[in-house]
Amino acid sequence: MQLGMIGLGRMGGNIVRRLMKNGHRTVVYDKDPKAVATIAADGAVGTATLEKLVDELDRPRTVWVMLPAGRITEETIDALSNLLQTGDAVIDGGNTFWQDDVRRGKALKELGLHYLDVGTSGGVWGIDRGYCMMIGGDKAVVDRLDPIFATLAPGPGDIPRTQGRTGRDPRIEQGYIHAGPVGAGHFVKMVHNGIEYGLMQAYAEGFDILKNAGIDALPAEHRFDLDVADIAEVWRRGSVIPSWLLDLTASALAENHTLDSYSGFVEDSGEGRWTVNAAIDEAVPAEVLTAALFARFRSRQQHTFAEKILSAMRAGFGGHKEPQQHPDAARQSAPEIIKPKA
Amino acid sequence: MQLGMIGLGRMGGNIVRRLMKNGHRTVVYDKDPKAVATIAADGAVGTATLEKLVDELDRPRTVWVMLPAGRITEETIDALSNLLQTGDAVIDGGNTFWQDDVRRGKALKELGLHYLDVGTSGGVWGIDRGYCMMIGGDKAVVDRLDPIFATLAPGPGDIPRTQGRTGRDPRIEQGYIHAGPVGAGHFVKMVHNGIEYGLMQAYAEGFDILKNAGIDALPAEHRFDLDVADIAEVWRRGSVIPSWLLDLTASALAENHTLDSYSGFVEDSGEGRWTVNAAIDEAVPAEVLTAALFARFRSRQQHTFAEKILSAMRAGFGGHKEPQQHPDAARQSAPEIIKPKA
Amino acid sequence: MQLGMIGLGRMGGNIVRRLMKNGHRTVVYDKDPKAVATIAADGAVGTATLEKLVDELDRPRTVWVMLPAGRITEETIDALSNLLQTGDAVIDGGNTFWQDDVRRGKALKELGLHYLDVGTSGGVWGIDRGYCMMIGGDKAVVDRLDPIFATLAPGPGDIPRTQGRTGRDPRIEQGYIHAGPVGAGHFVKMVHNGIEYGLMQAYAEGFDILKNAGIDALPAEHRFDLDVADIAEVWRRGSVIPSWLLDLTASALAENHTLDSYSGFVEDSGEGRWTVNAAIDEAVPAEVLTAALFARFRSRQQHTFAEKILSAMRAGFGGHKEPQQHPDAARQSAPEIIKPKA
Amino acid sequence: MQLGMIGLGRMGGNIVRRLMKNGHRTVVYDKDPKAVATIAADGAVGTATLEKLVDELDRPRTVWVMLPAGRITEETIDALSNLLQTGDAVIDGGNTFWQDDVRRGKALKELGLHYLDVGTSGGVWGIDRGYCMMIGGDKAVVDRLDPIFATLAPGPGDIPRTQGRTGRDPRIEQGYIHAGPVGAGHFVKMVHNGIEYGLMQAYAEGFDILKNAGIDALPAEHRFDLDVADIAEVWRRGSVIPSWLLDLTASALAENHTLDSYSGFVEDSGEGRWTVNAAIDEAVPAEVLTAALFARFRSRQQHTFAEKILSAMRAGFGGHKEPQQHPDAARQSAPEIIKPKA
Repeated sequence: MQLGMIGLGRMGGNIVRRLMKNGHRTVVYDKDPKAVATIAADGAVGTATLEKLVDELDRPRTVWVMLPAGRITEETIDALSNLLQTGDAVIDGGNTFWQDDVRRGKALKELGLHYLDVGTSGGVWGIDRGYCMMIGGDKAVVDRLDPIFATLAPGPGDIPRTQGRTGRDPRIEQGYIHAGPVGAGHFVKMVHNGIEYGLMQAYAEGFDILKNAGIDALPAEHRFDLDVADIAEVWRRGSVIPSWLLDLTASALAENHTLDSYSGFVEDSGEGRWTVNAAIDEAVPAEVLTAALFARFRSRQQHTFAEKILSAMRAGFGGHKEPQQHPDAARQSAPEIIKPKA
Repeated sequence: MQLGMIGLGRMGGNIVRRLMKNGHRTVVYDKDPKAVATIAADGAVGTATLEKLVDELDRPRTVWVMLPAGRITEETIDALSNLLQTGDAVIDGGNTFWQDDVRRGKALKELGLHYLDVGTSGGVWGIDRGYCMMIGGDKAVVDRLDPIFATLAPGPGDIPRTQGRTGRDPRIEQGYIHAGPVGAGHFVKMVHNGIEYGLMQAYAEGFDILKNAGIDALPAEHRFDLDVADIAEVWRRGSVIPSWLLDLTASALAENHTLDSYSGFVEDSGEGRWTVNAAIDEAVPAEVLTAALFARFRSRQQHTFAEKILSAMRAGFGGHKEPQQHPDAARQSAPEIIKPKA
Repeated sequence: MQLGMIGLGRMGGNIVRRLMKNGHRTVVYDKDPKAVATIAADGAVGTATLEKLVDELDRPRTVWVMLPAGRITEETIDALSNLLQTGDAVIDGGNTFWQDDVRRGKALKELGLHYLDVGTSGGVWGIDRGYCMMIGGDKAVVDRLDPIFATLAPGPGDIPRTQGRTGRDPRIEQGYIHAGPVGAGHFVKMVHNGIEYGLMQAYAEGFDILKNAGIDALPAEHRFDLDVADIAEVWRRGSVIPSWLLDLTASALAENHTLDSYSGFVEDSGEGRWTVNAAIDEAVPAEVLTAALFARFRSRQQHTFAEKILSAMRAGFGGHKEPQQHPDAARQSAPEIIKPKA
Repeated sequence: MQLGMIGLGRMGGNIVRRLMKNGHRTVVYDKDPKAVATIAADGAVGTATLEKLVDELDRPRTVWVMLPAGRITEETIDALSNLLQTGDAVIDGGNTFWQDDVRRGKALKELGLHYLDVGTSGGVWGIDRGYCMMIGGDKAVVDRLDPIFATLAPGPGDIPRTQGRTGRDPRIEQGYIHAGPVGAGHFVKMVHNGIEYGLMQAYAEGFDILKNAGIDALPAEHRFDLDVADIAEVWRRGSVIPSWLLDLTASALAENHTLDSYSGFVEDSGEGRWTVNAAIDEAVPAEVLTAALFARFRSRQQHTFAEKILSAMRAGFGGHKEPQQHPDAARQSAPEIIKPKA
């Protein structure tokens, strides 16, 4: 098949390469001409404007937009909607907020255009590992574009098959799903990322507890000096908690046990926030996913105003003064618990 | 009555003064001779050693220990137990871990001594406002020492009476309670402080949300520049959330709207930790009390190891780099949600 | 002054009564003619339609809408906007979502109408205690309606004055605030309710820990049979945690120690959800307010799907079977910790 | 080598079988003679008392105790300590609290006996998949028993090797680790299980959000009817969140999409509790691990006392009555947010 790709960053560029490697024709555009030139050298048809990209594609066209979610994606699809013709399709493969998809899908439909939202997971590894795709949109269009999705998907690989799936949609085991109407793709991807935050935080807290198991504040007979790199590695093998995220953690710790090249400012990309919003709209208690999000918020501030309020209250009722030392030195402030004499 | 007091810090000194003002005889000791001299000048019998303090008291003696919880309290009570005689009583008025009380009460009982644990709330304001006391120990001893407790308690004041309490223990409305056997006093005080953490954090988060209601990351029409000092004050009057803690917050904000004299390192005194431990032992879900405790832990660190693990994972799967700017400038990292054109 | 009131429920009816008691003229409407008749008997001008209510008021009119937030409020204000004339003002005193206010205020302004959003706190007690009001809108209109707000506000009462407020807006100490432009009133009220949820949950968890301090799963020497009614009462006096919410708790427990007339299904009115949404938009970590909200969500379900997922996973990796007993009997499932022999 | 095994439940029996299959001699005991007979039929030396088990082993003996943590394990090791001789070793392979190990290890050392604590992960799948083992104890003993651990461990399998581990302990890549002195094995296993709780809860919440994406309370255009079984399956392939726990979830959902054979009472085995206790002792904020634990506590109760306190407060300040309907029907109680007319 042929596919237009707008946006040649880490994700867009690799998707194009994976498609070309498997015989698809790609027409590409990026606001950065160098990005276009690089991938054109690998066989893509490079174009210098959206108009030219549209011109280079046969009808019915398919244009995949792979840009940062938000204004830039919105404006690009607005522009495309003026260039495309009845029956053409736009794919938003970025991390768009699913309610934006719903609105946009409706608007494009009125113009006779198709819209698919494709939550695309796989990160920098996707070019080799394939992309897990969660697709929202009309069945007919999803089916028409199946060759694209089948190529991008990881395929069954050597992952053991789940029992009891006989007769079910075979695409699932290839690693892509038609999740529902427009919006459903990014909704499912959003929850995927929400879970990702929770999983990451669970590991992170566990390793934090291991790392601090030897601090002076603990009774001497209850201190352990643990090797977190070895522990991450051993858990990959036969434990209950192996995962790809653990693999990555083991790699990072093997390289640098203290992770001191990282300061620990942790960004969030929006999906975690929207997942919590969805939980609230549904009245689903989602403590873990929310705590994971809030830990990231906290990581990006020196101190919250909330903490100053606490300090001010403590000064007010108890005359308590804040510790003057460097905070990490003051981590332990509780009295020790006296143990009975043996 | 007469009472020996060991420890003349903020709490111990004020307790002695409140007792003397109401006609009780006090014999005092502190390792700091100046603290002894100061309060002796106000009428207390100052002593230079535990032995002399014990000698100065008539039998059956009552010695109130008001020292930092932990080793110093333990050692002092050990020493006292060698000096006191059958029928004498020790009061631990500090913030001792209640399981230490249970153990200690048993040990002293074997020596023929009485032990009371008195959770004492009121902070620096207690000398005038009185102390809310939560008492654990044998009924006979608690009753014998009633004149002490009655003096220290705030009394009914002008606090409206609760309906439906006819025939119940009148001491409660004076502000002190015989909560149960040894340990019960500090157990109840511990939960009091656990709740205190939760209440403080609830206010603190709310004011944080108010404070940040005008940040640039929000859509212009959804930004508010709010006066947190005025809001704290207005909530004291007719709202659902007045409290003494809100009074203190309103005072602190009236003095300094930004609280920039505080950095926001928030200590914890142990009771919050033990409250969560108790919740776990009882299988009681206590999310709020725990979150309040963890917020304090987090406030005392530059970055957690957990956060570095998160950064390392994100670099691993997505090639994400940490923000290089000052963290507070990077607080907002999520894409904006596109709003439909009107 | 004169005021039109639409909605004569618990809140609207009492507001009208408090206004009339202080010499204001009120014109009232409710879809329930009996509610109109009852309050008309007390001196209000009852009307049978919105049109008549508008007719009965002199220009510039002020109409207070006190209806459940959502569609009914929206439709009523839509209808009013067709009946009112330039310079008239609409007050939404309900629990409207503040972003709805922003939108509505803009729409009414285009019609030459004023709009105020007044977060009104005080519940069923407000008629006597007064209402804490958080007001959003144009200064000129807020000032014009000051006689209304001054009457409804609690006034200074005997609440101690906060130091350091000399020269600040005196209305604050009467219990009402002009918080900012349209939307700011309900925004501040929203955070008030968010904090309220957090405070309530902090107390609730603490009492839960007290209540379960005597369960069989605990070691015999660490069990306490505590009187939660007495503890709630004693904490009202001299402790760090007195509050109006604690007063209410003490009353409820004095009446019924076990609270067995309540099943424990806890509703939420929207503000808790919107507060968390606001925290997320601002990247403010708000663990406690969120946990309080989620506890309510959980209280309204027999079991979550999440819990079934957990059971299914446990069966999958460990062959674990769910307890067959009544759940409360199975609360404790962890092994006891062995204590050293003395 | 030869090994004595006490306790022939799911774990103990399978460990014996895996050892025998690889040529080790096993001597077994269980209080249930049938369990002994069954495994004796497979080649183990069955014994009817601890004394006989000890007699059947050559010195220096190794006895693996695989019993429920708590009193039964404690008593069995006490009994063994009277039967074993200098240089013999006891392995506790159960889920013992690590501080019990520290105490026990010290006591056995005084008797001239060795003690190893071996956190053993793998569940019912371990017989084929192998067991991930986290070992605490003296190096010499761990080394002496290496043939046992090497047999039980999963071995490298086809799990991709982590870069940068050249020159590190090769046992790690076989799936077992000598984590540190006595106690360190169960400490690491404890944190493993703490993380496990967090991971499970993250998935569980995510699937709960997916499951409820179609509820009536949502606006019609924002509802999705999602197939959670297919989504679990597709995430196994190329996404960021594959894991063994996700594999198990996909299997369970393939078998039964609604999981209605589960009620959702979720037990906890102790490690989750101790992990949170350790976090508190170390002042490590561990929101996610704690929230996962509390979700289990909540799942085992009809209603908490905390929830009744909330209901009582709401009745007190607002006259709010609890919903009378079945709770699941009342899940949604917040007002809808009014959307602007297009």
